Amino acid sequence: MGKGRLEAFSDGVIAIIITIMVLELKVPHGEGFDALAPLVPILLMYALSFIYVGIYWNNHHHMLHAADKVTGPILWANLHLLFWLSLIPFTTGWMGENHFTAAPSALYGFVLLMTGAAYWILQQLIIAAQGPHSLLKEAIGGDWKGKASPALYVLAVLCAFWSPRIAQAIYVLVALFWLIPDRRIERVISRKEA
Amino acid sequence: MGKGRLEAFSDGVIAIIITIMVLELKVPHGEGFDALAPLVPILLMYALSFIYVGIYWNNHHHMLHAADKVTGPILWANLHLLFWLSLIPFTTGWMGENHFTAAPSALYGFVLLMTGAAYWILQQLIIAAQGPHSLLKEAIGGDWKGKASPALYVLAVLCAFWSPRIAQAIYVLVALFWLIPDRRIERVISRKEA
Amino acid sequence: MGKGRLEAFSDGVIAIIITIMVLELKVPHGEGFDALAPLVPILLMYALSFIYVGIYWNNHHHMLHAADKVTGPILWANLHLLFWLSLIPFTTGWMGENHFTAAPSALYGFVLLMTGAAYWILQQLIIAAQGPHSLLKEAIGGDWKGKASPALYVLAVLCAFWSPRIAQAIYVLVALFWLIPDRRIERVISRKEA
Amino acid sequence: MGKGRLEAFSDGVIAIIITIMVLELKVPHGEGFDALAPLVPILLMYALSFIYVGIYWNNHHHMLHAADKVTGPILWANLHLLFWLSLIPFTTGWMGENHFTAAPSALYGFVLLMTGAAYWILQQLIIAAQGPHSLLKEAIGGDWKGKASPALYVLAVLCAFWSPRIAQAIYVLVALFWLIPDRRIERVISRKEA
Repeated sequence: MGKGRLEAFSDGVIAIIITIMVLELKVPHGEGFDALAPLVPILLMYALSFIYVGIYWNNHHHMLHAADKVTGPILWANLHLLFWLSLIPFTTGWMGENHFTAAPSALYGFVLLMTGAAYWILQQLIIAAQGPHSLLKEAIGGDWKGKASPALYVLAVLCAFWSPRIAQAIYVLVALFWLIPDRRIERVISRKEA
Repeated sequence: MGKGRLEAFSDGVIAIIITIMVLELKVPHGEGFDALAPLVPILLMYALSFIYVGIYWNNHHHMLHAADKVTGPILWANLHLLFWLSLIPFTTGWMGENHFTAAPSALYGFVLLMTGAAYWILQQLIIAAQGPHSLLKEAIGGDWKGKASPALYVLAVLCAFWSPRIAQAIYVLVALFWLIPDRRIERVISRKEA
Repeated sequence: MGKGRLEAFSDGVIAIIITIMVLELKVPHGEGFDALAPLVPILLMYALSFIYVGIYWNNHHHMLHAADKVTGPILWANLHLLFWLSLIPFTTGWMGENHFTAAPSALYGFVLLMTGAAYWILQQLIIAAQGPHSLLKEAIGGDWKGKASPALYVLAVLCAFWSPRIAQAIYVLVALFWLIPDRRIERVISRKEA
Repeated sequence: MGKGRLEAFSDGVIAIIITIMVLELKVPHGEGFDALAPLVPILLMYALSFIYVGIYWNNHHHMLHAADKVTGPILWANLHLLFWLSLIPFTTGWMGENHFTAAPSALYGFVLLMTGAAYWILQQLIIAAQGPHSLLKEAIGGDWKGKASPALYVLAVLCAFWSPRIAQAIYVLVALFWLIPDRRIERVISRKEA
């Protein structure tokens, strides 16, 4: 079975997830700029989640590029990843609407943690399907980002109950170091093709 | 006429169906975890329906892979399937919001039954278009899952009026045995290609 | 410029249009079947509009299959068609919610008329781009459906103010005779390829 | 890395953006034509924004057609463009609902300005990735439209506080001169291929 339709379906779902988040920005009835004030935290959260979903799309793109074939378990692991991603608009909206209080901040991190776990499961299944000389396994290498992120999400969830500000700072920090595109996979593939 | 655009359109519609269900999870105004309590049944129903729509996408993927050509009746049978699938977000939301009472539980099963019937019609039309030595017909073989599911949906709809719990248990059960990926079609295709 | 991306974009927009109509079916708060009663006209309208949008997708599919190249005016004529199609969920919802009264019935026909006109413009531009021996022009031939439909929509819009029932009957009638797939284009193409 | 998936994802997001704007046209409860009166400004704004998003889709299509490869920074510059485009439904709805008053008119222009800036950044990155003999750079040439548009948006934003009418007239004017399809890229590509 080819990768094409799996990529197309994932792209469709991720495109919808990244776009429906903006529906939380409800059009205000007032006509002055002050009517926009309550929307500022929602807009900031939208921008952060847009970056997170963008990172997942970007890395998903690279990961499937390095995959050879699609098996039944890979299909389901991919749907599992899309499920957790699809909850991000909800946690984004809850955090934005409640001005970054404790419970929404913790839930936001929990969903990011589960999304990260779902991504890791999908990655392991693709590596397993590739056999002992997996191109993807070599490409991700030590994967310090993949290891540090869940630890930071757990830390953020715990901090959220004590100081939501620290939790939010961690979410921004993790997004920032993922923003740097993942050149490892590109590098290994170019080397192989050379 | 090629299969490509039919697959692309179906993927688009199914991607939207699977994602708009999450819009039923309305962002609560409260800021504590207790504000999430009324959303728990809606979330559970979302997860179940996500699996059902995922199963249909998965099987649709396999079925069209085994199809040779697309005729006018196949196009319409496919739209008919998408119509019933598109009602799943509605029945999911009604069941989640009313805490699994009788009428929503019965309607949920009725829409699953009609979706299954629409899938069966599409399958028959593809087999008919392939002629006497249909690859798809051979691939699905005895098709015990395809035969047992409608019987179980009818049973669930009837049970719903007496005990909604049993109906819901049946929906979870049917989802579980479809979750096991349908290796039959993959097996027959690989054998033919070998 | 290739047709691929134009088809993909149109499929995306049409997939969204056909699916967001179902959002007009708002989940009722009641838990009995009687809570569904006010939704019955909305559901009927949804089914009718689903068929209309399906017909446009189907015919659009055939028409672009017979097109050779995509010019700037064809891109804009295509967006113009998508604009009118995107208003169908609105007119569908208004007609369903107001139980088929005069003004919504007339507006429904007016948007169908404009959509048909936009389709006709797109068709003329594709034929013009193909030059004197246009395959598409030969394929559509006398095009009695394409000529009868606008006349019937105008009739329906006028009837709506006198008897909305007749207008609605006309909409169902036009949908029914378009449901029969357009074999003309398929036939001419197969003949040419033979 | 290929362009295919980047185009497909962008098409998906732009298709959703252009379609969800129509959700601002809320179905009225009244059943006469007068119930549509408050929707007229929203419909006009929808048509204008539909044209703007259509222009971006059209030019994005041409620009990526002239691109050779997709780098990490190009992926992010593309997501940045999609972010600003995704805010257009919000500014459209706010302007439509408040009958074209000052603040919404200024914000509409500001988001168009940022979208234009994001488009320009993406274009520069594609040109830079193509090296000294960039096909795209040659194709866009003097790019008077690309230079005049931001100046006009800034002018419109400033005018909005004094006379919203002038700001709106500028938005319509800019849309009109972009409507003329960008034949420059087509011309240069055909010349090269000849």
